[in-house]
Amino acid sequence: MALLSTAPMRSSALRKIEINCDMGEGFGRWKMAPDDELMALVDVANIACGFHAGDPSLMRKTVSLAKLKKVRVGAHPGLQDLVGFGRRRMEIDPEDLYSMVLYQIGALKAFLDAEGMPMNHVKPHGELYFYMQRDPAIMEAVIRATAVYGVPMYGAKSEVQKSMCAKYGLSFIEEAYVDLQYSKEAKLLSVAQSNVATPQDIYTRAFSIATNDNIIDKEGNLVTIGFKGQPFSFCIHSDMPTAFENTKACRKAVDEVNSKLGWS
Amino acid sequence: MALLSTAPMRSSALRKIEINCDMGEGFGRWKMAPDDELMALVDVANIACGFHAGDPSLMRKTVSLAKLKKVRVGAHPGLQDLVGFGRRRMEIDPEDLYSMVLYQIGALKAFLDAEGMPMNHVKPHGELYFYMQRDPAIMEAVIRATAVYGVPMYGAKSEVQKSMCAKYGLSFIEEAYVDLQYSKEAKLLSVAQSNVATPQDIYTRAFSIATNDNIIDKEGNLVTIGFKGQPFSFCIHSDMPTAFENTKACRKAVDEVNSKLGWS
Amino acid sequence: MALLSTAPMRSSALRKIEINCDMGEGFGRWKMAPDDELMALVDVANIACGFHAGDPSLMRKTVSLAKLKKVRVGAHPGLQDLVGFGRRRMEIDPEDLYSMVLYQIGALKAFLDAEGMPMNHVKPHGELYFYMQRDPAIMEAVIRATAVYGVPMYGAKSEVQKSMCAKYGLSFIEEAYVDLQYSKEAKLLSVAQSNVATPQDIYTRAFSIATNDNIIDKEGNLVTIGFKGQPFSFCIHSDMPTAFENTKACRKAVDEVNSKLGWS
Amino acid sequence: MALLSTAPMRSSALRKIEINCDMGEGFGRWKMAPDDELMALVDVANIACGFHAGDPSLMRKTVSLAKLKKVRVGAHPGLQDLVGFGRRRMEIDPEDLYSMVLYQIGALKAFLDAEGMPMNHVKPHGELYFYMQRDPAIMEAVIRATAVYGVPMYGAKSEVQKSMCAKYGLSFIEEAYVDLQYSKEAKLLSVAQSNVATPQDIYTRAFSIATNDNIIDKEGNLVTIGFKGQPFSFCIHSDMPTAFENTKACRKAVDEVNSKLGWS
Repeated sequence: MALLSTAPMRSSALRKIEINCDMGEGFGRWKMAPDDELMALVDVANIACGFHAGDPSLMRKTVSLAKLKKVRVGAHPGLQDLVGFGRRRMEIDPEDLYSMVLYQIGALKAFLDAEGMPMNHVKPHGELYFYMQRDPAIMEAVIRATAVYGVPMYGAKSEVQKSMCAKYGLSFIEEAYVDLQYSKEAKLLSVAQSNVATPQDIYTRAFSIATNDNIIDKEGNLVTIGFKGQPFSFCIHSDMPTAFENTKACRKAVDEVNSKLGWS
Repeated sequence: MALLSTAPMRSSALRKIEINCDMGEGFGRWKMAPDDELMALVDVANIACGFHAGDPSLMRKTVSLAKLKKVRVGAHPGLQDLVGFGRRRMEIDPEDLYSMVLYQIGALKAFLDAEGMPMNHVKPHGELYFYMQRDPAIMEAVIRATAVYGVPMYGAKSEVQKSMCAKYGLSFIEEAYVDLQYSKEAKLLSVAQSNVATPQDIYTRAFSIATNDNIIDKEGNLVTIGFKGQPFSFCIHSDMPTAFENTKACRKAVDEVNSKLGWS
Repeated sequence: MALLSTAPMRSSALRKIEINCDMGEGFGRWKMAPDDELMALVDVANIACGFHAGDPSLMRKTVSLAKLKKVRVGAHPGLQDLVGFGRRRMEIDPEDLYSMVLYQIGALKAFLDAEGMPMNHVKPHGELYFYMQRDPAIMEAVIRATAVYGVPMYGAKSEVQKSMCAKYGLSFIEEAYVDLQYSKEAKLLSVAQSNVATPQDIYTRAFSIATNDNIIDKEGNLVTIGFKGQPFSFCIHSDMPTAFENTKACRKAVDEVNSKLGWS
Repeated sequence: MALLSTAPMRSSALRKIEINCDMGEGFGRWKMAPDDELMALVDVANIACGFHAGDPSLMRKTVSLAKLKKVRVGAHPGLQDLVGFGRRRMEIDPEDLYSMVLYQIGALKAFLDAEGMPMNHVKPHGELYFYMQRDPAIMEAVIRATAVYGVPMYGAKSEVQKSMCAKYGLSFIEEAYVDLQYSKEAKLLSVAQSNVATPQDIYTRAFSIATNDNIIDKEGNLVTIGFKGQPFSFCIHSDMPTAFENTKACRKAVDEVNSKLGWS
């Protein structure tokens, strides 16, 4: 078939471009994102494991919802900091951190085991993610905990993380972002630094990255992301007020490009 | 061999009489029992999972210690009540409780997976145990969570629990106690109701139960326990001041009887 | 002045009819009610103290907001149950409960002290309130903790609570509800049992209670509440989706009646 | 009287040399130090407030014990880190930290109010103390929270802390340590860096500091502390295995020197 023959070879662990989203980040009676609506639009859910957000009942409910919507599920472990939503810096011994991450992955896995679902991946949350990027011992601790289950890790492009994952036999799935902006060095800007995106912006950015591996940065420059024609994962922030519209716009672009490339 | 030919048939899930003990019930810098010393004396450790006691680092350390000492490990889930040590009554929806127990079992299992050890069993802690005995929906919730992993449950003799375990395909391992006393109805008395036992008391009681299926109750009556010649598990309370001496005395009796019966 | 001379004598601790509302019931990044909008409409805020909801930063912010809007502040202590929002039954020793409530009152008082504001009252939250009504030892424990500061308690009409408050020298401020319905025995129905109220319903009910001491119950009967012409406090539920409209409607009725009675 | 006439003038907020000790640092069923025994030996108790250790029931019990033994009580606030015993670094916004410290001081004050006892002082715990020394904004936040109650702060000698306390109208009570060692720069060494002290060491050090304002450091040099003849507070670590013997030895030296100086 013409489309398939012209499509790039896929060396990534992914078979096509996808969308992932953080889910189950409420706690008890408190809600965070419109999980019910978002779950119908994404391919992959990163489910909070009770340390920065999430509680056992919510984890179970979110896993069940993912199963119903045929969404793959990964663990979304965080620092033990409910009041700070896992976003405050804490200094933790790498061996303790290994145990904290392993504990959370295991807890989520139990709900997947109960549903007969595989663990898709591990994606660290918030400050745990940034801590990994700053401190190689912390990165290795998180990767070692992940390696107990041999699943891929998700994260922003990082050669360091990719090669340390490889050392432990793990795939590293690279992410692109379309609800925030990039600098001209292809570095992601924060919510405060980014202009608010319209759904049309989201669609345009997603289509551009998926098709041409580049995006217009905040200054107006054309910036190459670096996926080199391989499938990757879009990460949509579920806690933005426009999360639902953002995800719909991204979904449209992803479906169009996957279809064009014959990826399924 | 004579001993073997005269030994009773073992229909229990156990192959011989054993000793189990709660372990890993500290929290952070706080300690509860002399785990290091006790681990050398028991066959089975019930490891706290972070809800009533235990934290990820302590769980990992306790699992490693168990592996070193060739002790089998089970999950010891409790109510979410650190300040009450899982001993206060709480009213919990059975579906929420199912999720809480499954979360804890999964968390412990991760440390076993990391060590390549199997999950031996599940033994509910404190008020969670009593709640099960009072409320059939709670009992079923805990058993359903255990059934995700298909491992036996441990507990005091209970036909109700045994038959509900059987309904979910689970074995039920019955326990005997020697550091507390029994009433003449073979019901266990509390710490406050029991006279303090000397190590010699422990040895005598353990030997009597293991050999003759009976014990002298607090009033001096000979009471039948009801194991009917099948292997069972002695439970030693790790948080008594004399836990180490008690366990040594029980170990001696158990080893003598297992050897006499050719059970190994 | 004519209006004053015809107004009923006020033996209540209140000088006029008022509105109170639970506030500061978020936690960390999670929000519960539109506190900013509600604070402009109420007379009294019951501020959560960190056990069932609330955290130190939110308590400080909510106290400051109350000061800005000239709203009086009381402590809203709850059971130690973030994940259950203080709505699950727990069995607690009355002496422990006394300490838990005193701890929370003291914590809130610190923020009032920092702002130079007096503590207006104590109003127990959710299951702590219901526990008091079921168990006299618990009621006494909460009242004793309140009595350390000698401030009034707020709650639904209860002769038992009123007289135990009096025993400890405390006033008891009685509440009426207009966003839920009453049974014909003048007993408050739950959210599930009540029909949803429109703002017009709220206004009508509030005006009727404030003026005539009665309300139309769910079955259509005219039911006497029993305030006997004394000032009382309307409690509006801040966590209903229509909380803002409800409070506006109640405010209108309260202002009209206070003005008519010359209460200020 | 001869003794008084030769005694140095006391410009310190203290009238004599005293001993302070951290107390109430258990949690629920877990214990930390032999508070019952230590309370009979010290002048001042720093009571944990529930964030790094302590719970409401333990706070109440410890305050009551202090009253019984005529021991003055201060708040011992810490970072919100039970599992790390308030010893792990966390990055906290100074305004949030102000609220956390104020919350804890208020909570402890409630138990003092209930007993009719004054708040003696505030002494930050563990990493909160070190964080203050590293970060002026954090130091100011803690001092501002303390200034709500206008009580002195306790801590190791620090001109920075002393002068910032003065800016907020607070006294700063300087401490000496005798169960750890000093470097030749009069800097306190950690537990790991210090040789274990015998009770005789404790006595000798306490006597030397109290009488001569100097001590033999770990290398054998005579080091001046810098109290310049003013009363100060010895801090004994309650969580050392020899805490009771240490405190007795320190008590003996303190009583002898106070008596010699006519300080009472």
